[in-house]
Amino acid sequence: MRFPSFAALRSACLDLPSGDATAAAAAANRDATLTKPPGSLGRLEDLAVWLAQWQARNPPQLDRIEVLVFAGNHGVVAQGVSAFPAEVTAQMVANFAAGGAAINQLAAVAGARLRVVPLELDRPTADFTEEPAMDEEAFLRAVATGYDTVPADADLICLGEMGIGNTTTAAAIAAALFGGGGIRWAGRGTGVDDCGLARKRTAIDMALRRHAGILGDPLHVAATLGGRELAAILGAALAARRQRIPVLIDGFVSTAALAPLAKLRTDGLAHAAAAHVSAEAAHRALLEELGLKPLVDLGMRLGEASGAAVAALILRAAVACHTGMATFAEAGVADKL
Amino acid sequence: MRFPSFAALRSACLDLPSGDATAAAAAANRDATLTKPPGSLGRLEDLAVWLAQWQARNPPQLDRIEVLVFAGNHGVVAQGVSAFPAEVTAQMVANFAAGGAAINQLAAVAGARLRVVPLELDRPTADFTEEPAMDEEAFLRAVATGYDTVPADADLICLGEMGIGNTTTAAAIAAALFGGGGIRWAGRGTGVDDCGLARKRTAIDMALRRHAGILGDPLHVAATLGGRELAAILGAALAARRQRIPVLIDGFVSTAALAPLAKLRTDGLAHAAAAHVSAEAAHRALLEELGLKPLVDLGMRLGEASGAAVAALILRAAVACHTGMATFAEAGVADKL
Repeated sequence: MRFPSFAALRSACLDLPSGDATAAAAAANRDATLTKPPGSLGRLEDLAVWLAQWQARNPPQLDRIEVLVFAGNHGVVAQGVSAFPAEVTAQMVANFAAGGAAINQLAAVAGARLRVVPLELDRPTADFTEEPAMDEEAFLRAVATGYDTVPADADLICLGEMGIGNTTTAAAIAAALFGGGGIRWAGRGTGVDDCGLARKRTAIDMALRRHAGILGDPLHVAATLGGRELAAILGAALAARRQRIPVLIDGFVSTAALAPLAKLRTDGLAHAAAAHVSAEAAHRALLEELGLKPLVDLGMRLGEASGAAVAALILRAAVACHTGMATFAEAGVADKL
Repeated sequence: MRFPSFAALRSACLDLPSGDATAAAAAANRDATLTKPPGSLGRLEDLAVWLAQWQARNPPQLDRIEVLVFAGNHGVVAQGVSAFPAEVTAQMVANFAAGGAAINQLAAVAGARLRVVPLELDRPTADFTEEPAMDEEAFLRAVATGYDTVPADADLICLGEMGIGNTTTAAAIAAALFGGGGIRWAGRGTGVDDCGLARKRTAIDMALRRHAGILGDPLHVAATLGGRELAAILGAALAARRQRIPVLIDGFVSTAALAPLAKLRTDGLAHAAAAHVSAEAAHRALLEELGLKPLVDLGMRLGEASGAAVAALILRAAVACHTGMATFAEAGVADKL
């Protein structure tokens, strides 16, 4: 789906389908009949209802879980913001292709397909401390790539990324949308030392000053301070919403990539669940700003959709209980005193 | 394994093997070579090392995960402490056998075998507000049943229970071992109303007064205030420790069943991980008393090893990454700037 302009993309982000209340009600009604005290499966019950709502189908199903990992390179690495060289982005894409990364193992455990989409790795975005990371055309091209990557028959999409330097990008977006500057949003990412952390903060604050004029527009923020892989994640989440496919959001970078959708429309991420909360401290703050409650908190901070793939296991558990359990009537179990 | 006396069981609980430091070190060394920033898989990394330590093998494996659910009935239900009739224990055992319960679905998702062991359901324990729940012989018989249920070739044991009334039992044990009385440890269990909750508190406080003389002895506490299924869980965890099989502890009742092992010996539960924290509020307090950090917090409060089975998925994720990921050298990825 090619959006010809910021304005066209904004219109698409504002014109979103709601979830299916009938399917959600049917799921809740079935849940109440299952052989367990009401509410005793906790969030597993809520997840089954949420999946039904956004798949517009009860029971929900997870026959096809798609893990999409978008990769991009970032001009801001020139500011010395990462503990790893930019070449690692392409090296890790090769590692994904060879099956050697964490997400390969985690997708297999989750019974998910993995698709890795590198975005012009040989053309890093511009250093946003000096100029906009992307112009309108480059941004919309990345959004379109993400949009078109979503398979129409997927039951769930897990969105993740790989990109040396992109926690600085994510922090800049979060700072632009929610305030607080580099001190609030910059963290150690892959493991920068104190000097690297100071450089991240400085780079973010420089960018906020340089691009002060566009900070009120979420899509301009995504283009000016973002990255190709973040733009693709935004496009993929938009495609999922329009095709009634629920989404699991991975970590800090993926959440920052999607934050513009919530800024544009309060329920813009209603079809998306936060998979986990990262050890990157800014992620917790960003989830709170967005009103998202993570499913797991395991101290992960890898990206690659790794947290989303782990959380997909929780969704499998939820759907298995919802679809497979006997009702009180079927099992001949007394449902009260 | 038949323990002829409290004294013999106590000796066994004090004479425990340690984990294998060599296997743990080998796991940590491998982890440091994998294609990810150090520490970026968070608790997944710790879990792989912990499994290696207690399996005494690197890499650890999860070829055979065994979910053991013990069921028992409780005389204290005469005090009106449950929202469900005692008959539901046997009805749910039949539901387990027919494959209709939550744990059937969750064990299947986790790739685990499920074994359900009913313990003399037609002979409830005595009402501990009036007399000891079990005498020495009955308690040791249940411990032996649990002990003998653990398969020697299991890679991981998930311990859970079913027993109408047993959150009152668990609360009484926790109160006896850690203080605070019924007000601290009684919760709504399967969903009692305010009057039922008041009856639970009263029953616990009555029991603490009646059996004040034995509260200093953890095994006497387990016999006097416990239940057959809790005793079996204790026996199973002891068998696992002695056979180098790591354990996932389910919810409040399972944790209370194992608390005597930690009271007898500080590292008595070092081979056991807390799978989740229950919505039953006392569980969080009990985990804190035991220094256990739950893997997930999903608002579950069902028992049946349901939380343990969900957490087993996290362990599968940990082992998959540990065993399947490429090293920096293998993948040709730069491991630093």
